[in-house]
Amino acid sequence: MEVVQVLHMNKGEGETSYAKNSVVQKKIISIETSIIKEAVQKCLEKNFPDSMGIADLGCSTGPNSLMVISDVIDTIYATSNQKEIPLPEIRISLNDLPGNDFNSIFISLPEFYNQLKKEKNIGQEGCFISGVAGSFYGRLFPKKSLHFVHSSSSLHWLSQVPRVLDSNILKPLNKGKIYISKSSPRSVLDAYLSQFKRDFTLFLKSRSEEMVVDGHMVLSFIGRVSADPASGESCMQWELLAQALMSMALEGIIEEEKIDSFNAPSYAPSAQEVRSVVEEEGSFTINCLEAIEIEWDGGQQAVKTIRAVAESMLEVHFGKEIMDELFKRYAELVGDYISKTRAKFFYLVISLTKKG
Amino acid sequence: MEVVQVLHMNKGEGETSYAKNSVVQKKIISIETSIIKEAVQKCLEKNFPDSMGIADLGCSTGPNSLMVISDVIDTIYATSNQKEIPLPEIRISLNDLPGNDFNSIFISLPEFYNQLKKEKNIGQEGCFISGVAGSFYGRLFPKKSLHFVHSSSSLHWLSQVPRVLDSNILKPLNKGKIYISKSSPRSVLDAYLSQFKRDFTLFLKSRSEEMVVDGHMVLSFIGRVSADPASGESCMQWELLAQALMSMALEGIIEEEKIDSFNAPSYAPSAQEVRSVVEEEGSFTINCLEAIEIEWDGGQQAVKTIRAVAESMLEVHFGKEIMDELFKRYAELVGDYISKTRAKFFYLVISLTKKG
Repeated sequence: MEVVQVLHMNKGEGETSYAKNSVVQKKIISIETSIIKEAVQKCLEKNFPDSMGIADLGCSTGPNSLMVISDVIDTIYATSNQKEIPLPEIRISLNDLPGNDFNSIFISLPEFYNQLKKEKNIGQEGCFISGVAGSFYGRLFPKKSLHFVHSSSSLHWLSQVPRVLDSNILKPLNKGKIYISKSSPRSVLDAYLSQFKRDFTLFLKSRSEEMVVDGHMVLSFIGRVSADPASGESCMQWELLAQALMSMALEGIIEEEKIDSFNAPSYAPSAQEVRSVVEEEGSFTINCLEAIEIEWDGGQQAVKTIRAVAESMLEVHFGKEIMDELFKRYAELVGDYISKTRAKFFYLVISLTKKG
Repeated sequence: MEVVQVLHMNKGEGETSYAKNSVVQKKIISIETSIIKEAVQKCLEKNFPDSMGIADLGCSTGPNSLMVISDVIDTIYATSNQKEIPLPEIRISLNDLPGNDFNSIFISLPEFYNQLKKEKNIGQEGCFISGVAGSFYGRLFPKKSLHFVHSSSSLHWLSQVPRVLDSNILKPLNKGKIYISKSSPRSVLDAYLSQFKRDFTLFLKSRSEEMVVDGHMVLSFIGRVSADPASGESCMQWELLAQALMSMALEGIIEEEKIDSFNAPSYAPSAQEVRSVVEEEGSFTINCLEAIEIEWDGGQQAVKTIRAVAESMLEVHFGKEIMDELFKRYAELVGDYISKTRAKFFYLVISLTKKG
């Protein structure tokens, strides 16, 4: 399964849409805000540019898409005012996979430009927003064109399911599971980690070509604090989804082989794993690397969030018709789990500078 | 009525979609091809750039959107091979109004990139395509970022209906008509011409900021050969549409006042009018300015083409429910007209160079 072809957030504005179910991502962004502000200020410290390139990778669609961009523009505006230097020309690129709903971002741009004009007197000649469709595990932008790069809630998606998990159809490596699990053999853990390393290295290499020296990058994604990749904090969401699927297989609603052959193209790395990839790749220095704890809320927001982000992929594999039943069962399992355990997961936030 | 909010080509791939009904526009593009090739070659003549910016304004959606871009890349590829200079980094911006269906362009990009790689060995690091949503009657791109600009079948759309036609609700200036007509008073003709001059001047000024010196621009749009702006060649499509509307008003299906208050935000300038705006604005020299005659085909392709481009606007004013009936009557009138007259219209193609 090529992630580039099947992964997109649920479209539109309905009950199960990503636009209506991205509260968790919104919370992350608000925590990141101070880190983003500091990074943008640093971009303007040594060499105040005439023209400043900014990219948001995995921008998705809905109300979050332009929120970070607003914060970045606010910071540029405040810094240039404070330094009494004219505003740079601001070039903004919003990136996501080709299946993303860019239309709904574009339709909201005239109102966004109107606000910029009204609040900051930034006109059409001062801020240029474009959409770029493609995988960030590869080149997306011209050489040395970016000063600040941001990516939120996206880098835990891998470019593909680790090949070894896809190849063994007769003897499935990860029976009855759809992600790393306590019962997974070592080879499954290794395959996920090595896919993450390959992908994240390619991400850093690509950005390193696109960014100017001393450019800054702030990334946040699902990770873990535990050294053990099979710990509950990073696996539970998939573990419970596998349980829901298996209960349907037991009743003959889906085939068990379908579950054996599905594996989530996702990985929650530890801070140490992230740090070691950055150091090995060598183009960036780490300014800070933090873990933020997020509690699964008591309600069903977690289920809705996961449905909004994972449904497009699950549909392709298991069929559209079983989605409502699957997420009903999943919701019950999550409710049960949350009632017994203080369930939490972690986001890693990392701030990087491009080396000279 | 703000054109930026209501004008878009019919979406999707259905019977009345723009994607299925853009044969005329395709014909124009194929005639333009040699002019485009020459202009792109000239961009590479004096200073072969390391990085080349290209914009297609009014790119729309469907099979035509990437056709011109393909031709441009072919020419760059052939020229760099012939001169034995490495290919420049190619930056392509596809522009249209925010209501355009950008999603369907983006979804076709992976295949487009695959072809580039296969046929020309141009990889992800060699060609960057982005989408830019906004009106080309204003700034869209960073300063001096473009080497070649193209716009096909778009500049006959004005930024708005001339204000004076909108303002006189009690005493409509253009009774029973929706565009310049033989019966229109002088003030209607003047209003349209002055709106065209204002818009086209703003278009040239905006591009002049965005283009490098010696950059080239090829534009094509509906125009006329006759000096008379009320001549059939430029008015007949709207004249017959007004007749269809009036026949419905006579039967009480729509209100006559609705027709009086609708005017097409479109203008078909003469070559002389175009030339004089370019000369007055002063940023560009004209390399060539040609008129291409297009015959209304015997069938109903003309009706379908006009439906695909104008329906979004007509719907907002007259209501979605009368569209099928309107275009049925329109088709009859067009059929009748074509059977009696060798009906034709004109496209102007103009090639410009940015002055130093």
